[in-house]
Amino acid sequence: MLLAMRDDEKTGRITLAQVAQRAGVSISTVSKVLNGRQDVAAPTRIKVERLLEAHAYRRTTRSAHEAPLIEIVFHELESIWAMELIRGVENVAKTHGAGVVLTESGTRHAPGPEWMEAMLQRRPLGVVLVFSALPGEVKEQLRARSIPFVIIDPAGDPDPDVPSVGSANWNGGLAATRHLIERGHRRIGVITGPEDMLCSRARLDGYRSAMTMAGLEVDPALILFGDFHVEGGYDRATEMLSRPRPPTAIFAGSDLQALGVLEAARVQGLRVPHDLSVVGYDDVSLARWASPALTTIHQPLRQMAEEATQMLMRLRDREPVSTRLELATSLVVRKSTGAPAGLNDGP
Amino acid sequence: MLLAMRDDEKTGRITLAQVAQRAGVSISTVSKVLNGRQDVAAPTRIKVERLLEAHAYRRTTRSAHEAPLIEIVFHELESIWAMELIRGVENVAKTHGAGVVLTESGTRHAPGPEWMEAMLQRRPLGVVLVFSALPGEVKEQLRARSIPFVIIDPAGDPDPDVPSVGSANWNGGLAATRHLIERGHRRIGVITGPEDMLCSRARLDGYRSAMTMAGLEVDPALILFGDFHVEGGYDRATEMLSRPRPPTAIFAGSDLQALGVLEAARVQGLRVPHDLSVVGYDDVSLARWASPALTTIHQPLRQMAEEATQMLMRLRDREPVSTRLELATSLVVRKSTGAPAGLNDGP
Repeated sequence: MLLAMRDDEKTGRITLAQVAQRAGVSISTVSKVLNGRQDVAAPTRIKVERLLEAHAYRRTTRSAHEAPLIEIVFHELESIWAMELIRGVENVAKTHGAGVVLTESGTRHAPGPEWMEAMLQRRPLGVVLVFSALPGEVKEQLRARSIPFVIIDPAGDPDPDVPSVGSANWNGGLAATRHLIERGHRRIGVITGPEDMLCSRARLDGYRSAMTMAGLEVDPALILFGDFHVEGGYDRATEMLSRPRPPTAIFAGSDLQALGVLEAARVQGLRVPHDLSVVGYDDVSLARWASPALTTIHQPLRQMAEEATQMLMRLRDREPVSTRLELATSLVVRKSTGAPAGLNDGP
Repeated sequence: MLLAMRDDEKTGRITLAQVAQRAGVSISTVSKVLNGRQDVAAPTRIKVERLLEAHAYRRTTRSAHEAPLIEIVFHELESIWAMELIRGVENVAKTHGAGVVLTESGTRHAPGPEWMEAMLQRRPLGVVLVFSALPGEVKEQLRARSIPFVIIDPAGDPDPDVPSVGSANWNGGLAATRHLIERGHRRIGVITGPEDMLCSRARLDGYRSAMTMAGLEVDPALILFGDFHVEGGYDRATEMLSRPRPPTAIFAGSDLQALGVLEAARVQGLRVPHDLSVVGYDDVSLARWASPALTTIHQPLRQMAEEATQMLMRLRDREPVSTRLELATSLVVRKSTGAPAGLNDGP
């Protein structure tokens, strides 16, 4: 023990052998834990990981001939905004000569164990995770190996102790609604995302504040929760437009939902924007390509991913980073919004 | 020389030292060539590469602790079908415990040198390239290092000596046009892709054959070349619809062009499908989400990428593969096609 402590003091670095000795296990067990192998009993794994983290164990760096890698892991690769995020990570990775490893794994809440094991073998510079939050276990495993990680949280529910990058959802909801109010609308519907996602609530709250600040009534019948997908927009809009006193404008909460709203309007014989104005959210490519092109809130997805990757590199160099970075959103006016029909037609 | 040849015969494997000796250069020069370093004179590089290839030089395999990687490289990461291809490579990579490294590089015709160098350092199992064709130089560099590669060729112009995966473009054009003819259309326009892309011509030829086989006149004024993007569809459709005797249906050549056609129709006050039927091509997600949802030709992008990746694994195991694999396309009927208005309205 005395010898181990002197080494520690001398270099500030602990070796695998020392960790094994302190944990009372074999070196090969410590090595298995480092490699994320599933065949180690949980209590043993936790004990070893705590020692690794407490002593800031760092593996020998990758050999000079091994090219650096940055990992990005999603739970849902088909997401329309995934491509923008990938592009952002790529932009920064390129400047560091690093390759980007892309994986789809797990559920909205955590990547799966098979990704963990494979990722640890690849020994990346760092990991960008596109998940709502991370289980304690995953965070511990990454910290134990000094692998920096950052969350990009489209759901808007960041762990307070994990560096994360998001965007200004409340402001986005406010701006979308203000735009419709400025066009002359009074009865404005909102179809936001799922109730359990913080970004849904933030956008909805922005809508409420815009209405209230303009002295307009917030009618609960004009507030519906969707699923952020086309079907949710279509179903909720069909519902909303078939009620008495339908809205003259709908803030659709996401571009995909806005597409569903466009189709619901078309099926009911309503023209956009003449009979119904529609605002989306995200500003993904298909917002430009919709017919008519969508007025929407630009979510700076690519820059969010670039910032997240820059944060990884700073963490790796042991530089300080903000725990939470929130990028501004902005209104993009296109062709799906206009004055309400009554104002259009004039006397 | 004699000693070198005996080694060769004994193991069938040549060493770096032997290559250096035969090329009349230093071992470190051979090593630089293997690593794709740019600071080797071209004649030297070519000489060394030819020796490497002639002797089927294979680097020592990656260490057990190094996780396997499969590379996919695009020239244009934002392409709407890129995500489907990535998904396909991922599906197969997962089953081999391999990570997928994703890169955007170069022009339509070739990846850039910085990718080459970084990729060689990563020593992947194989490379899937999404390019129209490959320069001889790139092929030689990959072959010299026994790195298997396969092209996925959305342009439809495969090198005869490179394993490639594509889909049945001529059949797709035929099916799209037949569908419109079966709905009762006679004046059918086509907006295909750029003139210099083989897949544009194949789809156009399919259209021509369908018209001719049905005894219908092929009017050159109803044939336009676009750009496979939304703008091309919009501009060409605006042109076509403003001429005398406009078509009652347009085969738009790609889903993105179809979106442009939908917008051109909307601006001219034409309803789809009542006044104009529209068929796309690709069947990317946004075909389902368009308003109305697009009738289109399904290009099996994900399966193409899965097949390409399976081919890589077989090449790596030195199993035979087809040089050219062409997957079938299929018609997907949604809401953007119907009978021409005259037939709708009846006597």
